[in-house]
Amino acid sequence: MARFFMAGTNIAGGMAIIRGRDAEHVKVLRLRPGEDLVICDGEGTDYKCRLVSSDKEEAKAEVIEVVPCKSEPSVKVSVLCGLPKGDKTEYIIQKSVEAGAQEILFFQSDRCVARPDAPEKKLERWQRIAEEAAKQSGRGIIPRVDWLGEYANALNEAVHRDLGLFMYETGERERLDEVLSANPEAKTAAILTGPEGGFAEFEVKLAKIAGLHICSLGERILRCETAPVVALTAVMYATGNLS
Amino acid sequence: MARFFMAGTNIAGGMAIIRGRDAEHVKVLRLRPGEDLVICDGEGTDYKCRLVSSDKEEAKAEVIEVVPCKSEPSVKVSVLCGLPKGDKTEYIIQKSVEAGAQEILFFQSDRCVARPDAPEKKLERWQRIAEEAAKQSGRGIIPRVDWLGEYANALNEAVHRDLGLFMYETGERERLDEVLSANPEAKTAAILTGPEGGFAEFEVKLAKIAGLHICSLGERILRCETAPVVALTAVMYATGNLS
Repeated sequence: MARFFMAGTNIAGGMAIIRGRDAEHVKVLRLRPGEDLVICDGEGTDYKCRLVSSDKEEAKAEVIEVVPCKSEPSVKVSVLCGLPKGDKTEYIIQKSVEAGAQEILFFQSDRCVARPDAPEKKLERWQRIAEEAAKQSGRGIIPRVDWLGEYANALNEAVHRDLGLFMYETGERERLDEVLSANPEAKTAAILTGPEGGFAEFEVKLAKIAGLHICSLGERILRCETAPVVALTAVMYATGNLS
Repeated sequence: MARFFMAGTNIAGGMAIIRGRDAEHVKVLRLRPGEDLVICDGEGTDYKCRLVSSDKEEAKAEVIEVVPCKSEPSVKVSVLCGLPKGDKTEYIIQKSVEAGAQEILFFQSDRCVARPDAPEKKLERWQRIAEEAAKQSGRGIIPRVDWLGEYANALNEAVHRDLGLFMYETGERERLDEVLSANPEAKTAAILTGPEGGFAEFEVKLAKIAGLHICSLGERILRCETAPVVALTAVMYATGNLS
């Protein structure tokens, strides 16, 4: 069934009013009055609707049923990554949205090779990738993509989640499965992964001081664009959101 | 520490003889006599060695310690995918090797859009991608990449593993976490995923008849190149190979 993301304010009195690009999209899909579609409010609620009328400027649809979007995981996971080079950023966004991330946030860390003058400028493109992936995978929200700037801001985000997971490849670490099973009540989590060159030692120390769990992802070295997706999948699996 | 893949036969009498491209590589890395390196026999054993001599044609290294490669997972997982279009194949190979696959096998199924005349010709390139990913991620083996031809061959591979997992997006399915926790003794497993268009219904029926577990990967629709990596990660996590 066709899915549309729309702000909740366009739905009132049991009727959904679709305008602009979405109205055109209804037209392009050749949906006809009487046919069903799903409108997502972008905040996890699905409106099952029946099309009443449709032209190039506006489509109207009657709301049949209001249900929580079942594709939204029970745990809201923020994926925080040291900014990688090139198209790895886009890869991380697309795959993290598919795998169930709540938001994808990039930050600058000591060993980042990528040092763009203005990552803010890329935000529009990044957000569009998230939107496309959300539609394609049937998400109930469009995960937010943002640029956090310096590393301290990433730590600050992580400490404000129920569970802060810092992925690191050497030294003394906790087992990810033990951390996850010891925290079944967590409703929000943050996953931190490094850029190509990994984290600097002082960054690991800071993460530890901030109370994050320093975790291993196993004995294989994962690329910087693979690690966030693998860690996110592990969290989804452990919390029953992958079955 | 530098890692080299070498056939076991080059190691005899406590001495490893490195020839050809690998000998050149030792030279390029400017390893000097007395320095340590690791030689993997490609079958899961690591030989910790100390370099004795090195020139462009041949390097000799004394074997210090023979240990099982700790990066090899306890479960050998075969990833079997309906052949996708374009560079998705390469993506699946690279990420599956990182995530711990034993082998990556492609097959033709009813809805494959990609219908190359001779995928055999691509095998050399595919295998090279697996080798590069194995080296980069510190694997103890170079996972095999192969072309199986028709779907029946994929089923035949899957039924010869302890656990056959068939990933499907609709209808009656088992929970992946329940299947995995009900089969803790499995030493080998197969993961089957479809091409862009998914599996045809008769293919699902055949898989069921063959005794494979028809499993869900959650409520989000995963792209054909994402599904095998997510499923493999779930198996690695569930079997304690991701911590």
